[in-house]
Amino acid sequence: MINDVLNHIDDHLPDSLERLKALIRIPSISTVPDHAPDCVRAADWLVDDLDTLGFTAARMESDGHPVVVAHGSDEPAELLFYGHYDVQPIDPIDLWDSDPFDPQLVEQPHGMVITGRGACDDKGQLMTFIEACRAWREVSGTVPRRITMLLEGEEECGSPSLTRFLERHRDRLGAELAVICDTGLFDSRVPSIVTTLRGLVAEEVTVRGADMDLHSGMFGGIAANPLRALAAALTTLHDDTGRITIDGFYDGVADLSPERRAQWASLGFDAGAFLRRIGLSRPAGERGRDALEMTWSRPTCEINGMIGGYNGEGFKTVLPASASAKVSFRLVGEQDPSRIREAFRSQIRANLPPDCKADFTSYAASAASRMATSHPTFGRARTALGAEWDHQAVETGCGGSIPVTGFLQTVLGIDSLLVGFAKDDDRMHSPNEKYDLECYRRGIRSWARIIAPDN
Amino acid sequence: MINDVLNHIDDHLPDSLERLKALIRIPSISTVPDHAPDCVRAADWLVDDLDTLGFTAARMESDGHPVVVAHGSDEPAELLFYGHYDVQPIDPIDLWDSDPFDPQLVEQPHGMVITGRGACDDKGQLMTFIEACRAWREVSGTVPRRITMLLEGEEECGSPSLTRFLERHRDRLGAELAVICDTGLFDSRVPSIVTTLRGLVAEEVTVRGADMDLHSGMFGGIAANPLRALAAALTTLHDDTGRITIDGFYDGVADLSPERRAQWASLGFDAGAFLRRIGLSRPAGERGRDALEMTWSRPTCEINGMIGGYNGEGFKTVLPASASAKVSFRLVGEQDPSRIREAFRSQIRANLPPDCKADFTSYAASAASRMATSHPTFGRARTALGAEWDHQAVETGCGGSIPVTGFLQTVLGIDSLLVGFAKDDDRMHSPNEKYDLECYRRGIRSWARIIAPDN
Repeated sequence: MINDVLNHIDDHLPDSLERLKALIRIPSISTVPDHAPDCVRAADWLVDDLDTLGFTAARMESDGHPVVVAHGSDEPAELLFYGHYDVQPIDPIDLWDSDPFDPQLVEQPHGMVITGRGACDDKGQLMTFIEACRAWREVSGTVPRRITMLLEGEEECGSPSLTRFLERHRDRLGAELAVICDTGLFDSRVPSIVTTLRGLVAEEVTVRGADMDLHSGMFGGIAANPLRALAAALTTLHDDTGRITIDGFYDGVADLSPERRAQWASLGFDAGAFLRRIGLSRPAGERGRDALEMTWSRPTCEINGMIGGYNGEGFKTVLPASASAKVSFRLVGEQDPSRIREAFRSQIRANLPPDCKADFTSYAASAASRMATSHPTFGRARTALGAEWDHQAVETGCGGSIPVTGFLQTVLGIDSLLVGFAKDDDRMHSPNEKYDLECYRRGIRSWARIIAPDN
Repeated sequence: MINDVLNHIDDHLPDSLERLKALIRIPSISTVPDHAPDCVRAADWLVDDLDTLGFTAARMESDGHPVVVAHGSDEPAELLFYGHYDVQPIDPIDLWDSDPFDPQLVEQPHGMVITGRGACDDKGQLMTFIEACRAWREVSGTVPRRITMLLEGEEECGSPSLTRFLERHRDRLGAELAVICDTGLFDSRVPSIVTTLRGLVAEEVTVRGADMDLHSGMFGGIAANPLRALAAALTTLHDDTGRITIDGFYDGVADLSPERRAQWASLGFDAGAFLRRIGLSRPAGERGRDALEMTWSRPTCEINGMIGGYNGEGFKTVLPASASAKVSFRLVGEQDPSRIREAFRSQIRANLPPDCKADFTSYAASAASRMATSHPTFGRARTALGAEWDHQAVETGCGGSIPVTGFLQTVLGIDSLLVGFAKDDDRMHSPNEKYDLECYRRGIRSWARIIAPDN
């Protein structure tokens, strides 16, 4: 039976692609309020699609964008599949080679890809699971396993409404294990099961000085300059060795165990090649840590945006009244998001000159998570991935933050199986995001194997 | 005769105001290429207006925006009046209480003002001189003194084409002394003659890291972040005492002489009140220097703009491929603009991490200037200003940079008389720029007195 399903997937790949393209065409950017109606459209598209699989699907209200919930069975679910239909903003738009919401099939040096915002993250990835269910239904008449799907629309802005949604609908979302397709391959040939995820604290800070923009000839020197003050305060966040200086920041960060260090070393990760692909030559970050250790097991602090003063063409000798920055922290181990947020705010305030004040906005605060791997689906996934990719799956950490894994543990008490097919060069969150056609095909086939009946 | 002229000015003030409003309505923003046609319109408006005064006026081409040259006499000129018809950009536009190019008469606590971009800098100020000439012509049939006018359109972007223009038209621009109306009162009751001006170096720096925007989950920590690198490099430009750390920066900066320090101290400048008007409480800048000393005789380094990463609504966990800043220096004494520019560039480059590169664009590089005050017009100006304002004029420094004074010295060999009627709260370069109606009226009257015939 499984071979019939796999052949069916290959034979019907063009149809699977058309469905993915249709979903990419909906510009469901969750962080931009003008796109709220598009988030509703994406949710409706998924409800309609899941109906055709025999799922009982509904678009449900949350405090933010809607959530799609679909039940494949009347019995309590074995697996709760989680995905997100929302996507990142598209700017800088002039760096895209084609319309981010008009997906194209393009031949690239390593094979055919599909382009567009969300082609990988997470529309392409979530569709691998849905298409696997579809193949089973079309071949065998039914979707194996008791499955509930939970597809949210706020992952790209930190899932602010999800905890409350899970609490409110706990009864219909019960399952033995969550299954998530939002991570990557270890490399283009080696599948990966992610068992640790970094947490995320995201903050915006605005520094204000004088109550109006000033002429730098009249006021330069004697008036506090919020841009200079902000740049200097942000610069205090790291020391010369790349260590983060925030008070208590490393509380709860454990050093890598010798076993794990050895396991990761055995992966033969080539940091140089990884960096060369993006035009860099050597690892930045904490001195004395290797690249995988930094990405999978160390916390970070990064400036993700900064603006102030005159940035148009030409020059304007202005001292701006205010300047802003967006700063995020990736958390590991037992780091406490709210303590880190407060310590960050205190350090910025303490490093501003007199006459400069800071206001803060919080966008996200979630802790890191680690998965228990005892559910039998983990064993099935190892076998299935090994068979599909001709290479044993490796268990890895993930530098990204998928806050839902923490929420699922806290609210529903279930761990997550994280399997995904993204590649390092997929340009998620960047212009020219793409998903390899081969990743899409083998992703669908991987899920078809993982959810196959036991007999 | 002078009393007839002064009465004529007061009686015809509404007409003078209408002409100023017409000039403000032309949005001649020199630094924004889309406004180039408006710069031509402003030049044409001035040519037409100067024609009505009996001047032989022409719009002349330069390498940038046009220059208006008008001769009031066929004889070699005694005075070369310089002004600029271009204005600063208007952003942030949402902070303006009314359209910046639809001037309004508004009653404010200290009296009536006229609003709009350029109301003060420099349209209002240059019109004080033109209106004084008009009053003399209408009362006596002729404009006293042999006067040439030179009105340029690139002052707000550093006068990049002016030197070449002066060189090319040296023959028709000869005069004994330049006269410039682009400075301020010492305070609302005390007129000022500016005898020293700071120079200006204006630079834009762009720092590049990876060759694409990156996902901070995948690449945070191990990939160099141009925003962090730029903030850190800019922060090295000052030490903890507010001193600028650039190699050789203070070469050519003399300490204030005891005489000048005493003279400035006698002015009774209230730094606290000056800062309170803009919402600040204490002088920033170099520790141990007082406010007037810093503004008139010390160099500065300021960040005037900075941008990078995601700055829209919400949050995006991106590591940007590049980040930019606009940085300017005010120069004093014998500081060498090109040496400072190179030393700045070297310091930024030396403080970037591996994998980050900086590109630079130069927007301005002019030295500070100091005026000789021997021409008899200086004596006339002291007398005229004392009579008009009921207070002796003070000789002061100016924190701003008017590069033309240096060019006039270098190319034409003439010094400048700098008299102006701006107030500290005129919000030049900021939203809600204004010019006091009383400054406009007494400014016109001041010039009428200064250019009065000797008899």
